[in-house]
Amino acid sequence: DQRRTTDIGGRAHTARSRNDILATMDRMRCRDVVIAVLDALAQVRQVAVEQAAKYTDVVMPGYTHLQPAQPMTYGFYLAGVAEALERDAERLASAYSRIDRCPLGAGAFAGTPFRIDRAETARLLGFPGVVDSTLDAVASRDFIFEVLGSLSILGATWSRIAQDYFIWSTDEFRLIEFPDSVAGTSSIMPQKKNPVVLEFLKGKAGHILGHYSGAVSILRGTNFTHSGDANRESIGFFWAAADDCLTSLKLLHLIIRTASPRREGMMKRARENFSSATDLADTIVMKSGLSFRQAHHIVGAVVREALDQNLTADLISLAMVQRASIEQMGREITLSEEDVRSSLDPRVSVAGRRDGGPAEDGVRTVLGKVQAKLDADRHENRRRKDLIDAAGRERRQLMVELAG
Amino acid sequence: DQRRTTDIGGRAHTARSRNDILATMDRMRCRDVVIAVLDALAQVRQVAVEQAAKYTDVVMPGYTHLQPAQPMTYGFYLAGVAEALERDAERLASAYSRIDRCPLGAGAFAGTPFRIDRAETARLLGFPGVVDSTLDAVASRDFIFEVLGSLSILGATWSRIAQDYFIWSTDEFRLIEFPDSVAGTSSIMPQKKNPVVLEFLKGKAGHILGHYSGAVSILRGTNFTHSGDANRESIGFFWAAADDCLTSLKLLHLIIRTASPRREGMMKRARENFSSATDLADTIVMKSGLSFRQAHHIVGAVVREALDQNLTADLISLAMVQRASIEQMGREITLSEEDVRSSLDPRVSVAGRRDGGPAEDGVRTVLGKVQAKLDADRHENRRRKDLIDAAGRERRQLMVELAG
Amino acid sequence: DQRRTTDIGGRAHTARSRNDILATMDRMRCRDVVIAVLDALAQVRQVAVEQAAKYTDVVMPGYTHLQPAQPMTYGFYLAGVAEALERDAERLASAYSRIDRCPLGAGAFAGTPFRIDRAETARLLGFPGVVDSTLDAVASRDFIFEVLGSLSILGATWSRIAQDYFIWSTDEFRLIEFPDSVAGTSSIMPQKKNPVVLEFLKGKAGHILGHYSGAVSILRGTNFTHSGDANRESIGFFWAAADDCLTSLKLLHLIIRTASPRREGMMKRARENFSSATDLADTIVMKSGLSFRQAHHIVGAVVREALDQNLTADLISLAMVQRASIEQMGREITLSEEDVRSSLDPRVSVAGRRDGGPAEDGVRTVLGKVQAKLDADRHENRRRKDLIDAAGRERRQLMVELAG
Amino acid sequence: DQRRTTDIGGRAHTARSRNDILATMDRMRCRDVVIAVLDALAQVRQVAVEQAAKYTDVVMPGYTHLQPAQPMTYGFYLAGVAEALERDAERLASAYSRIDRCPLGAGAFAGTPFRIDRAETARLLGFPGVVDSTLDAVASRDFIFEVLGSLSILGATWSRIAQDYFIWSTDEFRLIEFPDSVAGTSSIMPQKKNPVVLEFLKGKAGHILGHYSGAVSILRGTNFTHSGDANRESIGFFWAAADDCLTSLKLLHLIIRTASPRREGMMKRARENFSSATDLADTIVMKSGLSFRQAHHIVGAVVREALDQNLTADLISLAMVQRASIEQMGREITLSEEDVRSSLDPRVSVAGRRDGGPAEDGVRTVLGKVQAKLDADRHENRRRKDLIDAAGRERRQLMVELAG
Repeated sequence: DQRRTTDIGGRAHTARSRNDILATMDRMRCRDVVIAVLDALAQVRQVAVEQAAKYTDVVMPGYTHLQPAQPMTYGFYLAGVAEALERDAERLASAYSRIDRCPLGAGAFAGTPFRIDRAETARLLGFPGVVDSTLDAVASRDFIFEVLGSLSILGATWSRIAQDYFIWSTDEFRLIEFPDSVAGTSSIMPQKKNPVVLEFLKGKAGHILGHYSGAVSILRGTNFTHSGDANRESIGFFWAAADDCLTSLKLLHLIIRTASPRREGMMKRARENFSSATDLADTIVMKSGLSFRQAHHIVGAVVREALDQNLTADLISLAMVQRASIEQMGREITLSEEDVRSSLDPRVSVAGRRDGGPAEDGVRTVLGKVQAKLDADRHENRRRKDLIDAAGRERRQLMVELAG
Repeated sequence: DQRRTTDIGGRAHTARSRNDILATMDRMRCRDVVIAVLDALAQVRQVAVEQAAKYTDVVMPGYTHLQPAQPMTYGFYLAGVAEALERDAERLASAYSRIDRCPLGAGAFAGTPFRIDRAETARLLGFPGVVDSTLDAVASRDFIFEVLGSLSILGATWSRIAQDYFIWSTDEFRLIEFPDSVAGTSSIMPQKKNPVVLEFLKGKAGHILGHYSGAVSILRGTNFTHSGDANRESIGFFWAAADDCLTSLKLLHLIIRTASPRREGMMKRARENFSSATDLADTIVMKSGLSFRQAHHIVGAVVREALDQNLTADLISLAMVQRASIEQMGREITLSEEDVRSSLDPRVSVAGRRDGGPAEDGVRTVLGKVQAKLDADRHENRRRKDLIDAAGRERRQLMVELAG
Repeated sequence: DQRRTTDIGGRAHTARSRNDILATMDRMRCRDVVIAVLDALAQVRQVAVEQAAKYTDVVMPGYTHLQPAQPMTYGFYLAGVAEALERDAERLASAYSRIDRCPLGAGAFAGTPFRIDRAETARLLGFPGVVDSTLDAVASRDFIFEVLGSLSILGATWSRIAQDYFIWSTDEFRLIEFPDSVAGTSSIMPQKKNPVVLEFLKGKAGHILGHYSGAVSILRGTNFTHSGDANRESIGFFWAAADDCLTSLKLLHLIIRTASPRREGMMKRARENFSSATDLADTIVMKSGLSFRQAHHIVGAVVREALDQNLTADLISLAMVQRASIEQMGREITLSEEDVRSSLDPRVSVAGRRDGGPAEDGVRTVLGKVQAKLDADRHENRRRKDLIDAAGRERRQLMVELAG
Repeated sequence: DQRRTTDIGGRAHTARSRNDILATMDRMRCRDVVIAVLDALAQVRQVAVEQAAKYTDVVMPGYTHLQPAQPMTYGFYLAGVAEALERDAERLASAYSRIDRCPLGAGAFAGTPFRIDRAETARLLGFPGVVDSTLDAVASRDFIFEVLGSLSILGATWSRIAQDYFIWSTDEFRLIEFPDSVAGTSSIMPQKKNPVVLEFLKGKAGHILGHYSGAVSILRGTNFTHSGDANRESIGFFWAAADDCLTSLKLLHLIIRTASPRREGMMKRARENFSSATDLADTIVMKSGLSFRQAHHIVGAVVREALDQNLTADLISLAMVQRASIEQMGREITLSEEDVRSSLDPRVSVAGRRDGGPAEDGVRTVLGKVQAKLDADRHENRRRKDLIDAAGRERRQLMVELAG
């Protein structure tokens, strides 16, 4: 029926404008983007949880200011990373609810005099509701800026992780090893593994930030209505940024999956680099009843003596502690050689720090919560996809019937 | 009891580090900031709703690309603005849930061997829960970046509104008038009202974007742990940005409250500037059964003739339409003089666009929803404040008891 | 001679590394980019000068804060624009001198033990000199950031020009008209000219700023040496930004070339909108010997009376001035009806402001200087191209001889 | 003479507007800022040159991708840094010429009908010339954006240097040591030196970039004329950024002056970490006549064997090379034990890389050029100051005479 088809084509333009159609397409495309990013991010979170669970017993130095501060475990590190990535996912999921409204029926911006059913149109496109104001419906792309902003924060997260691996895999730190497949190597220097993937990750995070900065800069110079700079130019790099983000998440997944902790080296460093000094002070406080300030002064003197004598931390003795105590306090304190030994043992340090800390049960508890949230998030993301797919099926069915 | 007081002071340091204390203070301060911004934003939304309700009948031209496109009302414009600001508030409220977790007990990053009750500490500081991973607890300030990002999008919203007023209050547009108290005037040119407040608003939005851009730029170069650049430098300008935001919201409130629509000028422009052309085409489609394309061609020819004859839109006659129809279609169409008159009347155009459009009931429906959401948001924000205040009272009470 | 060719191929790798080759290629490519941008920019400056010269007599209102402030001419406006663009060109030319140094011979960063002639290599690649330090030679791409930064400022210049045209071509300002070929039109609203080119220009300026922001953000997180993020990722968007810049300059050229001032409308507005009020005050100072403050108060009173009576500026009479003088000063002042007439005539106002101002000879003097600088700049840019071309010819000749 | 003084006060307002006065003050203030930054930067360059000269013989590993690549010296590193900072100074000096024009006489933007001598006014304010177009004179602050952009690139330079020291001063790299006065220390961990100054430097670079990004973002949304956002808001953070820059340069000076290379550790690492592998290959090419590819394969095999046997680079023997040669080429090559020894000696490697490379005479030649440029730059900066001071003296003298 040629005539009828033509009518349908003609009808398609009724009560429509390029403005609300573009707004609708941007939202539908943005939904798909966020769903894809959430999927990729869920995979990264999953691999972080799995590797964390695998390495809860791998003791390594923990750093602040890039200086060894206290012993931790590689599993503990990854659990922290997984929790941070969880919030990155939360932000995107929260943004999704603001994307997921249908602008169709807004026309050029002032709605339409034709009696159309905006709610039904929305439903058929898989939207749970409409953007109420028809002006707001075509004038606003803030949902995209919110997503882009969330990606720029996510990029900062992965950039910091990449920076950790970048330094930990140096010849000097030797805490982490990557397979050749992940690093660029040279024929002449087989020991040199250029961390090009990590550099890529750091770079992409900067690009995404630049895109956000440029996009909002464009937006703020516009009027609150439809215009080319507000609705097209400003969001022009969003789609590329989203692609970069997907690629980056795949590479981050690869990095976390293939990063191999050098157990012995990690333990050796943790044992020797005085990062348990705090633990020794804590023990002195608990055993001797001294105040923190006093204990800190004693331990400081002990560490200084060890450095002067070129002793590593694991060689600190009770005698050294007592010497320092006499010097600082005028008397010996209640403390055994075993107290000193054990408090300087990174494994003991780690084991004692439980509630959210590096102790194995602490890490497992955190991982349990992270996994539960991850499972819920994945379920929710599947639900999003299903809703869109079901609406697509219904639309196609209706089309067939109309064309009938 | 000197000794006892000293003990309390000493105890205060137990199981604490500067790192987790700073993280906790940043979160407490950030909570207050977001609550204050949400309050100020609620006031802006309220005044937008009130002014919108007051001006639902003030017909004016609506623009796309800064060219007159279709008639709207000033109330409709403000309703759209109110809805956009609602999402800005939603974003901040969503961020609040990620601020509102207590990092205390995380120590330097690896927790503490002392048996402290992290949940109870959190409760006493008014937090509904803790940041689970102690590493994440001190390494992450993403809650601040999220707020700052949301402020940069909010800034773009107010900047666009300011840009509308900036242009609408020119001598040439003459749609909006501000009292002298809002504009800078000169003794010699009393007619010249320099919109310094609007320029301030546009400027501040740029500053906030710059702060975000600089902050995330700093963050991405750091390691995932505590450091001066990650946790201090990166967030250094946040507090000033938040102050700027509060000032800006007060000024935005002032602007919306005092902006006075020039009713006659608005209506005259809407009547004369051909923005009802689309309505005439819509009427032709409804009355004559022509397709959209045909109706568009006829109306285009009519407008061109009017422009050639220096006629404004309200002077278009049935005869002109029929002439164009004969020219384009070879025949006259079914249409009355009254159809032409009424379809070119901006008030009729506006009245016909109901579902979220500029028709009075459309605007009132949107305003009803916006007001309901605003009331709920205000209630929620009060609840946030009450929770913090109650915790503060409980802490003070406990202190008094401890000090005995 | 197969063997010889192979030797040449082998020799080509001697004393070379990917790092210095990439650095050299980036500089050669960046030279071409800057030369092309300077060429395109010279064309824009030329068309601005030509249109300025054509329209030195077209009086229009000049604005500050988008409020009419004083009469000017369209030629004066374009002369100011041309001068601003001159500095944008200066910046790029200055940057060129820092690009134009050859890094070859720097190897991976530590130079090479082979005795090569870095100066001769540089000369053959058209560089007037080398980057001295081999570390700096491969570690630095600041020449690209400087160019990108200069493009971001250039983008701000064209964005401001675009914003002027955006507003001046509205239905309300009606100062500037564009042909249909430059604006997007709709079949139904032939009067509506969507300034999509202007919106594109505004948008691209934001993108370039975003690229700069992202690029420097990446750079600052790197070490001072060769790495993927410092030397590849950070500059990744530069080439696209340069392309965008070339496209934008072509469009800016089109805009300035085709922008047609509406002479009558411009003059009418300048005559009626009180922008000559300052001139009236200046005349009173000169003729009556009053101080500025006194003259300003009198004129302010006159303008206020005119506004109250709905009189445009050209209808202000001597009687009104004297009434105000009596009111403010207690006496009449020395002033003729002709003084009032002439000082309120925008053409007289314009004619009196000579040294760099809108008076015809003022504008012609500025244009003379701008044209002279433009000619010199073009000559210099041709010299840059010739030097590169000559080096290319010499290289090819040498290759032929070597392949002999 | 009371009347005369009053006249002078009155005259001071003649032919002046707030707009050109503000523009003039911004330029005068910006001149002072740039002169101060150039002074501070000259001091940093000087200390870099001096420390470089002091440490030309301190061999250390050079890195690319943060992996050891080739031996260099600490003096060579600082010479490269000094050269990079030289370009940062060049950029600011180039910008200075665009600041150093006087806008006075531009009035509100359209000049003045009063016969004033703009050139003489400029001279008395220490400007070598005027901004010709009066519109450009008040509409443009691009000189500030250029300076701010240059500071953002300078910030990236110092941020990269800071990042090098940040990593080199870790417990793991142990290449650089800072005195306690520069690093934050803790009572309990005397070995832990928190590089807070370096973190501050990294942070400030990000802030300056953010200010630039925000400032240009504001500018691009304005019209090409005077307005509050274009000329006040947009440059609002410039002065603070300049202060931050001055503080940062003082700290960078402190860092370079106090950074102490750990000679033995540096040499040990350079000797052991296979960074001379390229030198061994170069020697094989020179002595044996093999192609680069062949030499690379042999050396690659040797290094791999050394790694397998846990041998450091300095323990590679001729026998190992010949074994690899037989394996790869089927035969031994012409090479002596001394060739192997010497090519693996970092001092020999360094000594052979002369033209801009780490060899002592290479570094001294670069330093000679850098010092000569620095001397010239300082002289030029003194000249700038003298010119401003002389103009100030002449102004004061004239005032005294006028007040006479």
